[in-house]
Amino acid sequence: MLTLFHQTLCPLSRYVRLILGEYGIEVHLHEERFWERREEFMLLNPAGQIPVLMADGQPPVPGAAIIAEFIDETMPPERGEDRLLPASIAERVEVRRLASWFNDKFHTEVSGPLVSERVFKRYMTVAQGGGPPDTDAMRAARHNIRYHLAYIGWLVRTRDWLAGDRLSLADLAAAAHLSATDYLGEVPWNADEAAKNWYARVKSRPSFRAILADTLAGLPPAVSYADLDF
Amino acid sequence: MLTLFHQTLCPLSRYVRLILGEYGIEVHLHEERFWERREEFMLLNPAGQIPVLMADGQPPVPGAAIIAEFIDETMPPERGEDRLLPASIAERVEVRRLASWFNDKFHTEVSGPLVSERVFKRYMTVAQGGGPPDTDAMRAARHNIRYHLAYIGWLVRTRDWLAGDRLSLADLAAAAHLSATDYLGEVPWNADEAAKNWYARVKSRPSFRAILADTLAGLPPAVSYADLDF
Repeated sequence: MLTLFHQTLCPLSRYVRLILGEYGIEVHLHEERFWERREEFMLLNPAGQIPVLMADGQPPVPGAAIIAEFIDETMPPERGEDRLLPASIAERVEVRRLASWFNDKFHTEVSGPLVSERVFKRYMTVAQGGGPPDTDAMRAARHNIRYHLAYIGWLVRTRDWLAGDRLSLADLAAAAHLSATDYLGEVPWNADEAAKNWYARVKSRPSFRAILADTLAGLPPAVSYADLDF
Repeated sequence: MLTLFHQTLCPLSRYVRLILGEYGIEVHLHEERFWERREEFMLLNPAGQIPVLMADGQPPVPGAAIIAEFIDETMPPERGEDRLLPASIAERVEVRRLASWFNDKFHTEVSGPLVSERVFKRYMTVAQGGGPPDTDAMRAARHNIRYHLAYIGWLVRTRDWLAGDRLSLADLAAAAHLSATDYLGEVPWNADEAAKNWYARVKSRPSFRAILADTLAGLPPAVSYADLDF
């Protein structure tokens, strides 16, 4: 059995949940208040960050990108064409490039600040970095997301899925970050019709169901968050 | 023939140069002023960041971690034991964890700010982000590096190399970031004897020679930078 140390609205954790969901692999979810720097958790991941995946007989696997490689190497699907990291070198480069685009760039510029300011900070003490949301950081994130939506729209106007002909880690990364942002009602879907249509396709996949059922006490999702016809 | 779009003191670019150096693979170096966001370069990597590796017949490969995976998958050394990314799953997790520790965490907390503030900003216009160095950012980096040196020291007091029994991508990542920091005279080597001894071993490898011969016009290296007995 796998255990994922995560937070419900952490987009990097959602990425891992979506990968496992696509492969039909069950995982036990452990909500980790990583900002408390709990001693047992720091032993699992000295960097103190989520997500961390635990698999029987293996060392703890930290970080979204490293977990994705680990799953690909240890639990690939039976049918090669279902693989979220394709076999050809050129496709692997493109899938990894776009997964990193969302897990690193989008996370730094959009989903990281929004989720930290609006969600994680609510639970933190002042010493842990808590306090009122930084409105400058949120304003910058709301500005930046429009460029990312336009980029997604541009990609899916030339391809079926973000990295090419088939669903890949790239789509799951983008959708994971957008879903956390969408929970907060922070995605201006009207800004790009093609991006919206692509997200509607990803959102309707069975792997997305658990994500859409998420709710946080005291912070309900935006009205259309779980709506497949948003 | 390979081409690497890089900057001499960019630690992520140095990581790629060290990997290629260990494998004895020649590369043409192209100094890219990425902050100018040159149109042809933005086509190679829409994220606008270095390093980017170009290989004949392949799409541009952006980013240190993705380049490392690409080299491992397309140009592995003949002898398996010389591989910088080991074969066993547990070792792969540990090597990738530590490579990410330096390429992401150390870069964010230490080498990125120091190289940006002291080097890249010298060449940038104000519109590109240039100007006087941010002394707060540099002070934080100088504070943070001590924790990282202590972590390296702790690791190599229990293992021969950072990730285990053999040299791996983890050592090259750590050494790449330290070397850029050391060029600027910003590594307090006396703070950890074990870390210093480990770095002396990496520094004396043939793959390091080109790195130690680097010089920037108007910004000479610190006195002991190229000294193997520092």
